[in-house]
Amino acid sequence: MTSTPLRVALIGAGRIGTNHARILAERLPGVRLTAVADPVPGAAERLAGPFGARAVTDVHDVFADPDVDAVAITSSSVAHADLSVAAAEAGKAIFCEKPMAMTLAEADRVVEAVERAGVPLQVGFNRRFAADFVAAHDIVASGGIGTPHLLRSCTRDPGLADPGRVPAWTIFTQTLIHDFDLLNWMNPGARAVEVTAVADALVAPDFKHGGLIDTAVVTIRYDNGAIATADASFSAAYGYDVRGEVFGSAGMVTIGDPQQLTVRHYASPGLTAPTMRADTELLDAAYVAEFAAFRDAVRDGTPPAVGPRDAREALRIALGCIESVEAGGTVRLAS
Amino acid sequence: MTSTPLRVALIGAGRIGTNHARILAERLPGVRLTAVADPVPGAAERLAGPFGARAVTDVHDVFADPDVDAVAITSSSVAHADLSVAAAEAGKAIFCEKPMAMTLAEADRVVEAVERAGVPLQVGFNRRFAADFVAAHDIVASGGIGTPHLLRSCTRDPGLADPGRVPAWTIFTQTLIHDFDLLNWMNPGARAVEVTAVADALVAPDFKHGGLIDTAVVTIRYDNGAIATADASFSAAYGYDVRGEVFGSAGMVTIGDPQQLTVRHYASPGLTAPTMRADTELLDAAYVAEFAAFRDAVRDGTPPAVGPRDAREALRIALGCIESVEAGGTVRLAS
Amino acid sequence: MTSTPLRVALIGAGRIGTNHARILAERLPGVRLTAVADPVPGAAERLAGPFGARAVTDVHDVFADPDVDAVAITSSSVAHADLSVAAAEAGKAIFCEKPMAMTLAEADRVVEAVERAGVPLQVGFNRRFAADFVAAHDIVASGGIGTPHLLRSCTRDPGLADPGRVPAWTIFTQTLIHDFDLLNWMNPGARAVEVTAVADALVAPDFKHGGLIDTAVVTIRYDNGAIATADASFSAAYGYDVRGEVFGSAGMVTIGDPQQLTVRHYASPGLTAPTMRADTELLDAAYVAEFAAFRDAVRDGTPPAVGPRDAREALRIALGCIESVEAGGTVRLAS
Amino acid sequence: MTSTPLRVALIGAGRIGTNHARILAERLPGVRLTAVADPVPGAAERLAGPFGARAVTDVHDVFADPDVDAVAITSSSVAHADLSVAAAEAGKAIFCEKPMAMTLAEADRVVEAVERAGVPLQVGFNRRFAADFVAAHDIVASGGIGTPHLLRSCTRDPGLADPGRVPAWTIFTQTLIHDFDLLNWMNPGARAVEVTAVADALVAPDFKHGGLIDTAVVTIRYDNGAIATADASFSAAYGYDVRGEVFGSAGMVTIGDPQQLTVRHYASPGLTAPTMRADTELLDAAYVAEFAAFRDAVRDGTPPAVGPRDAREALRIALGCIESVEAGGTVRLAS
Repeated sequence: MTSTPLRVALIGAGRIGTNHARILAERLPGVRLTAVADPVPGAAERLAGPFGARAVTDVHDVFADPDVDAVAITSSSVAHADLSVAAAEAGKAIFCEKPMAMTLAEADRVVEAVERAGVPLQVGFNRRFAADFVAAHDIVASGGIGTPHLLRSCTRDPGLADPGRVPAWTIFTQTLIHDFDLLNWMNPGARAVEVTAVADALVAPDFKHGGLIDTAVVTIRYDNGAIATADASFSAAYGYDVRGEVFGSAGMVTIGDPQQLTVRHYASPGLTAPTMRADTELLDAAYVAEFAAFRDAVRDGTPPAVGPRDAREALRIALGCIESVEAGGTVRLAS
Repeated sequence: MTSTPLRVALIGAGRIGTNHARILAERLPGVRLTAVADPVPGAAERLAGPFGARAVTDVHDVFADPDVDAVAITSSSVAHADLSVAAAEAGKAIFCEKPMAMTLAEADRVVEAVERAGVPLQVGFNRRFAADFVAAHDIVASGGIGTPHLLRSCTRDPGLADPGRVPAWTIFTQTLIHDFDLLNWMNPGARAVEVTAVADALVAPDFKHGGLIDTAVVTIRYDNGAIATADASFSAAYGYDVRGEVFGSAGMVTIGDPQQLTVRHYASPGLTAPTMRADTELLDAAYVAEFAAFRDAVRDGTPPAVGPRDAREALRIALGCIESVEAGGTVRLAS
Repeated sequence: MTSTPLRVALIGAGRIGTNHARILAERLPGVRLTAVADPVPGAAERLAGPFGARAVTDVHDVFADPDVDAVAITSSSVAHADLSVAAAEAGKAIFCEKPMAMTLAEADRVVEAVERAGVPLQVGFNRRFAADFVAAHDIVASGGIGTPHLLRSCTRDPGLADPGRVPAWTIFTQTLIHDFDLLNWMNPGARAVEVTAVADALVAPDFKHGGLIDTAVVTIRYDNGAIATADASFSAAYGYDVRGEVFGSAGMVTIGDPQQLTVRHYASPGLTAPTMRADTELLDAAYVAEFAAFRDAVRDGTPPAVGPRDAREALRIALGCIESVEAGGTVRLAS
Repeated sequence: MTSTPLRVALIGAGRIGTNHARILAERLPGVRLTAVADPVPGAAERLAGPFGARAVTDVHDVFADPDVDAVAITSSSVAHADLSVAAAEAGKAIFCEKPMAMTLAEADRVVEAVERAGVPLQVGFNRRFAADFVAAHDIVASGGIGTPHLLRSCTRDPGLADPGRVPAWTIFTQTLIHDFDLLNWMNPGARAVEVTAVADALVAPDFKHGGLIDTAVVTIRYDNGAIATADASFSAAYGYDVRGEVFGSAGMVTIGDPQQLTVRHYASPGLTAPTMRADTELLDAAYVAEFAAFRDAVRDGTPPAVGPRDAREALRIALGCIESVEAGGTVRLAS
């Protein structure tokens, strides 16, 4: 705690940027939030002010600032790759929200840029830092379930506020990409080779013509024979539901529970219990842990636990899903 | 299945007798329900008829019948001891519902009678035959929790149909006696030495003046230092709730769950799940298992798993509770 | 209990026949096991004898016997359809184990035969009679989860004793057919239109060349938009694992738990608890309930809860899976 | 976040002081840790330094400092009351760890001092700020279980490092006092009237002669008829175990689970899952929440959620327990 703090500039003052700014500013010893950059007039100011950080509208001011050690990219997804490349070229350590890129070509550009610059890049796959998933991974990695045969992951969000504003394929590139990374992580050393996605607009069918997909099931075949499924829905009536399962030759590990607390209420109709209503209830500690891991990786010069090549692997599956839905069947994944 | 069946006569055609008659007649290979005895005209007939058993109004006909190998005593509790003594003198194997006796003197008479006659007597402490409790006992008996330090048991029934007809002290002699036997069983080799009972009529306070006690908490100190609590209520709004816990020097085992099934319903208000509504849901298999154990003990000439001395031990605690409530404090147990 | 019992002849004295014979003979008031037929010399005798039933080697003796009201077909699967047709033509009520047929043409023949003869046929989809699944179905059928969007079902068996003797495609026609029927039942009024099966021999890869498939994941698209996944493995190291889940516009219901009891053991390494080791632990009561339902349907002249058309629907999906594996991708289902 | 921060001085740099210092310094927007006072040379310095707070050895410097708005008393328990009185006289807002006092006379002095000075005093009963307990209390307070009849609370700590250094009666005044406050809180409007404590040295019997009590069961009778039990052990082999239960005329609420995470590992021996190993895993968020509540109460001039009269009520039960153990039976509580 006595060493020089890591000075981080946040790029993108939206919903997730607001969440991350608070963590960087208030919950991480050894980290200082020095600047918030956002092109929208007032947005950077509003977020930076209470934390005593500098507000910036031109992101290049951040890259040019010698007092910025690292950037946290929480801008619109389409800008992630370009900003990552620019940050790498400026020699900044990079925390980049998922997805790191929207195409494999973009992802390759980021990989090359950070490797050339020799800067660390950590991707915002927060489940890798959630205690439950970490414990499950430890069991898998130590052989506790043998060789993985069947894997599952699901993400169901509590609601779809404005279906007309959801970009096409969001369910794959923004939502299920978390599950794809998780499945890759839980099947160590294996690589996805084939994908089948079945998807529809069941929550908001009126928006299907505009490209909305709000419900999806994905089957992934890995080169070690393991078969994984992932599903997502944009509207879980009961709240927020993220669960995982890895079944292998020697056992199974399951992770997650839609229940929020240990409270159980037994009354005349039976048992009732509260469910989680927001992802932050599930992931609050994980958000802190992922930035602590980033801080430590930068400080120690060690590679981040989840880097640009991992991001490319998850993206590869997401893009395969889009292709599968368009083709109406199973597709081999590009390497 | 090809050996001669054990011929059992049921004595007492009330609620629990009806339950046991069905088990003896339909669910136990190797057992035949040959007669049902009840002094109430028509009661024996009504129960015996559908099973093709003989109806008897004078119980001595049962004792005198050479074609009866064993009796199942499900009469009014106050008659249990006398019927057990008479059955022993007639050389019948005995299954006796709890409580086996209402006083320690009565219990001693039964113990002497069955030991003199050399007949087996098994008491209806059904939890000893419920799979969950058996598994817990195996863990305790094999040292899985070390030496017991703290024990708990509770029994909460779904309702109190007719509070005006509940005999005084029923909560101790009929209800908690199950918990007392369970606690004794889960603390192998130890003996209760001291008891404190705190009790009241909270469910039906209007009946307190008539002697009703419907809510009770009992603390038992054992000669190995272990301390147990048991509680009971005659009115659980959510159904039927029997649970146990044994905490020791090396761990803890818990038993029971008021939930009835594995079904969980998640909807907008949260999680809901059904609870058990009757003791038969919990104990159905245990009722069959206790009679199977009785059949096997009689057939093999081995002592029943839970015999008259166990019944006396549980009764000793129940009587101590009555004394404690009357004295308003802790009492040493009679040996 | 006083009415004339239903006289049932069992056809096929193998493993499941042995299970069902005991239920018919010992656990079902109002049912009598009158005969056991099996072409293997001694097999019928061995099973029929202890129950006092007649042993038959030529099945036609059963069909010709006017004292047989109903047959329970538990023979080899390939004979199910022919035996069902013959039984129907003999005017017997039919309980047929799954699969009712091996091809859609066979299934159609059975449907026609029973409809022409006017006899009831119930298929052995036992999960429809398991209390947990029934409770879940009640929730779904009463609108408790809204319109189904995502469904899941899994079946994992404790072991694969003799992989060399497992007929090809068993995982679909014998194992997952249970899941397919369950999913159809949990998505009332909808029909499967498309299926993708991904399958492999991961448990016993040496037997793959002989046609063994021991691990499979199936995705089903229904005509109401719902998407279902089912998975199966022939080797769950922890025991027997059957679970289900229905997620819809208004909520979710989950069913099943690999844990066997409510016992929890907490010790120095953490929590441990026993898991189920056999399907009978899960399904024992369901086996009794399905025959009770069959008895009542025959007695009351009402259609069985799960009939030949349901069997055909589940088979349709199983056959689509085989086609999908052979084609290496998604297939439209034959109507 | 833009208002003037609350300036807090911590008094007592021991184990709990170290925990609280970190929360005050790093996790609470709107609070500043300005000083740490401890008479042990170096102790205050060691704790204050990394947080940029002032180190003080004479606590009167804290009371005299106009730049200190509030004190957090985490000294040795025997000093709590005197320090609270001195802080009140100095006009400081007070957060005082439990127990607030060691005798009822001391407690009365504190109550009088803070009421005379008009300063807020909040006691460190952290369970009142743990999400699970808060949710349970909401259910109880809103009538969800009707009138409380039976209550339970337990505290089992993972180990007893140095039994020779545990002050006599610690189990009541330091450990179970949490449970007593919880039970009082969960039985709103009622007052304890009678207590029976059964206690022993079962974990470390060699230290019993020195006054050690490491295992205790307490029964409390309230003036509304409700009966509560609390138990504690200084050595839970499986970790840290705090649970509660309130059973009433219309239902039951249960709180707590010794399991740490949602991870479940199923393998050949059955299910295993990790348990909690430290109270901080359970209470980490509660520690932050209690100081946030304190900050808000001071800022808004509202009375703290748990004040000096609550502390006196819990102490009253703890002192009754000591009397009960010494008397060997039930005691009426002093008012």
